[in-house]
Amino acid sequence: MHEDRLRYAPLAEKVTSAENAARLIRDGMTIGMSGFTRAGEAKAVPMALAERARSEPIKITLITGASLGNDLDKTMAEAHLLSRRIPFQSDPALRRAINAGEVMFVDQHLSETVEMLRTRQLGPIDVAVIEAVAITEQGGIVPTTSVGNSASFAILAEKVIVEINLSQPVALEGLHDIYIPTHRPHREPIPVVAPQSRIGLPFIPVDPDKIAAIVFTQKLDSSSTVLPPDAETAAIAGHLTEFFLNEVKKGRLTNRLQPLQAGIGTIANAVLHGFIETPFHNLTMYSEVLQDSTFDLFDAGKLDFASGSSITLSADKYREVLPRLPHYKPRLILRPQEISNHPEVVRRLGIIGINTALEFDIYGNVNSTHVGGTHMMNGIGGSGDFARNGYMSVFVTKSIAKGGAISSVVPMVSHVDHNEHDVDVLVTEIGLADLRGLAPRERARAILANCVHPAYREPLADYHRRALARGGHTPHIIEEALSWHAALRATGRMPTAVSTEATG
Amino acid sequence: MHEDRLRYAPLAEKVTSAENAARLIRDGMTIGMSGFTRAGEAKAVPMALAERARSEPIKITLITGASLGNDLDKTMAEAHLLSRRIPFQSDPALRRAINAGEVMFVDQHLSETVEMLRTRQLGPIDVAVIEAVAITEQGGIVPTTSVGNSASFAILAEKVIVEINLSQPVALEGLHDIYIPTHRPHREPIPVVAPQSRIGLPFIPVDPDKIAAIVFTQKLDSSSTVLPPDAETAAIAGHLTEFFLNEVKKGRLTNRLQPLQAGIGTIANAVLHGFIETPFHNLTMYSEVLQDSTFDLFDAGKLDFASGSSITLSADKYREVLPRLPHYKPRLILRPQEISNHPEVVRRLGIIGINTALEFDIYGNVNSTHVGGTHMMNGIGGSGDFARNGYMSVFVTKSIAKGGAISSVVPMVSHVDHNEHDVDVLVTEIGLADLRGLAPRERARAILANCVHPAYREPLADYHRRALARGGHTPHIIEEALSWHAALRATGRMPTAVSTEATG
Repeated sequence: MHEDRLRYAPLAEKVTSAENAARLIRDGMTIGMSGFTRAGEAKAVPMALAERARSEPIKITLITGASLGNDLDKTMAEAHLLSRRIPFQSDPALRRAINAGEVMFVDQHLSETVEMLRTRQLGPIDVAVIEAVAITEQGGIVPTTSVGNSASFAILAEKVIVEINLSQPVALEGLHDIYIPTHRPHREPIPVVAPQSRIGLPFIPVDPDKIAAIVFTQKLDSSSTVLPPDAETAAIAGHLTEFFLNEVKKGRLTNRLQPLQAGIGTIANAVLHGFIETPFHNLTMYSEVLQDSTFDLFDAGKLDFASGSSITLSADKYREVLPRLPHYKPRLILRPQEISNHPEVVRRLGIIGINTALEFDIYGNVNSTHVGGTHMMNGIGGSGDFARNGYMSVFVTKSIAKGGAISSVVPMVSHVDHNEHDVDVLVTEIGLADLRGLAPRERARAILANCVHPAYREPLADYHRRALARGGHTPHIIEEALSWHAALRATGRMPTAVSTEATG
Repeated sequence: MHEDRLRYAPLAEKVTSAENAARLIRDGMTIGMSGFTRAGEAKAVPMALAERARSEPIKITLITGASLGNDLDKTMAEAHLLSRRIPFQSDPALRRAINAGEVMFVDQHLSETVEMLRTRQLGPIDVAVIEAVAITEQGGIVPTTSVGNSASFAILAEKVIVEINLSQPVALEGLHDIYIPTHRPHREPIPVVAPQSRIGLPFIPVDPDKIAAIVFTQKLDSSSTVLPPDAETAAIAGHLTEFFLNEVKKGRLTNRLQPLQAGIGTIANAVLHGFIETPFHNLTMYSEVLQDSTFDLFDAGKLDFASGSSITLSADKYREVLPRLPHYKPRLILRPQEISNHPEVVRRLGIIGINTALEFDIYGNVNSTHVGGTHMMNGIGGSGDFARNGYMSVFVTKSIAKGGAISSVVPMVSHVDHNEHDVDVLVTEIGLADLRGLAPRERARAILANCVHPAYREPLADYHRRALARGGHTPHIIEEALSWHAALRATGRMPTAVSTEATG
């Protein structure tokens, strides 16, 4: 049965149902599951486990690559299965449980989780549950549409459950490059010197004796929820293109730019998509998630190579790309997220990181995660790996939210994920602020002049003027610094000088 | 004249006075000067330049390794010579000028500055002024007690002024390891695989034709201002030792720990000094500045090797160490700060970073730089290079300041240099909070239970209780989050439940 997918004969006896496999997981365990940005997650076992949790007291610590698809985080959260969740999520139901203090969420830089597991600062992993295209002749696990933390989970776990997904095309095999850094204190350099560097194996090497159960599944990945480009995201892409063209003109960059990273989501995807209509060419990506725009850029002849940790596409793009996978394959690599986001490689390659801000302040500190300073959206993800260590760190956002009730530019951010040291360029649909080499007072001038929605420009400039009168390297009126967030909480809107209806 | 120090004969004609050399520097130029944590700075030319600035309108952008000694930053600031200062400083007079908005201070991660210069995102450097022990037979520059950014300054500058300091011992020669990463997009891995890895040259290679002036000087480095350990710093060291012993017991670390980095200053120095009385042995350091404690640990037989970017000692220690330099030399390397702080090497070696916080909040966000959220102290320095990328990130501080008027633990920090993702362990003299693998609500419990001064424990717990009632992943009362800083500003103290006189 499915010998093309399960090629190591002694493991045939481990084939079982999702329900049986899920019985290997017991209350209190730490479970490592595949899945990164709604791609390649184990699908059947977590569902069976959630079902069990409805009638049996069972709580687990769940560690993944990043977010899961197929409403898995929702289903597990609603079954009260999760006591702890690491290192990223993006599900509204789970988010509610996190913000209610029911699930302890540990929001980590995506490159860090397996370092902590390997040094036993986290874990140990009791059971790993990994989605696979196939198990090789040697018993190696071939991942599907993501690598994430799957390789280290499987290697470090006591037991491994493999979900062989028959709907995931076998053409995925050969796409993955599994490399695990050697142990400290004798770690050697990671030999990635270009996005196209192949340094590892096309499968996850595990002791086949650890594979305790194999489940066949059929369910597809969820498609991404990315929205198509709109006027504002097109304007953001336009400002950034103009900026890069100017960098080329000044001789700081070539038309090949530097390897690109783009965070997940509508705006970053739209920005990359915008590069189709530019003179840039022979681009490369060294990113986490490869979205629709990656394949748009391939098709437009703009992109030479893309390295990522997952492929997450919209429903339409999925239907388009999957049958043509062999066509794209020579130009694609999927790596462990530790390698896709590794500080060593990010600095060496000189990556341009483009990530989304929830809000930023007049000095260029960025909040990527906390609504109102308190409520978690998704998590910091890999943005911190790239923003701190890359060649240039760009953050993008629309200048207003909620129909103008919220300004994305505020006097002081209510939570800091990326401080001013890590933020080089800020872009909204209004314009772009190049903050490189500027002191905070100069950063404020650039941001106020370029990024703020007209409805909020005067109140923000007024705050800054009054703060300047108090002095300091980073002038603030400390009693008033978070008053915009307080007003939003109290009245449902931030303070505008004039009605946003009139100007926005 | 001084052929042992100036060994490349054609350069003899370039010997001149500091005043003459300083004439190479003109209004509006960007100058790169040697100097890192009060060690190895050029001394005569900046003084001559400051003197000139008193009678002539001249402003420069000054980029260094880090802070300068010999009141140079003070003298230059008071002469109104500096329009822009990058990337670190620690001088009260310069700090006043920065906080008054007279000097634009660009506070950078110390590993980043030369990356930005090399890619022309900063600069160009018009003139480099480098202190040297000697100029070699090939015209190479041998630095003195620091490397800092000197190598890249000299390589990138149009003209180089060398100050040969006859008071700096020739025994320093051979200590330095000058390595410059290759150009992107063809950068190779940096081959440092252990603190003792030698990968470069013992001198800065420059085209001798660029050396435009040579000045002989005599002035010594300033001694460090580090205070001796006291009861509180001893308690901090004690908590951290106990923690590490427990990590060893759990099998996560060996008695050799991991390579250690310690930030500049009294507390970090005292913590390292405290390792003398522990079972830890065969330790190594991979740090920025090597302070008194490095040599105390060598003398105690605890330390095998120390790699840094500078040596900065107290007056007594200086007198003790300098004559015995040949004794220590086989166990020392001084590197460019780009390499001592490089994300690639910091992650590869798995460094334990120990840095000082100005304040931290109940969720473990750290402010290292801004008094009251507005006024710059020194700068972020290298703490961000190590905290983001290392094996473990420890921040230390005393639990109160200003005789108890200020709590170092606050509801929300007034400025974020290190967010919760980068802060693993917090230590005050009260105790230690191990935050690894904890969600914000759990972090708050650990911090409240272990780190807070008794005088502030109840008001802080009260804030947290009331914040919890509002919910959220990171509960806050946004209107009140910065009220402790506002109270300090208004009344000169933060709110205690009981008098600090009674408890502190």
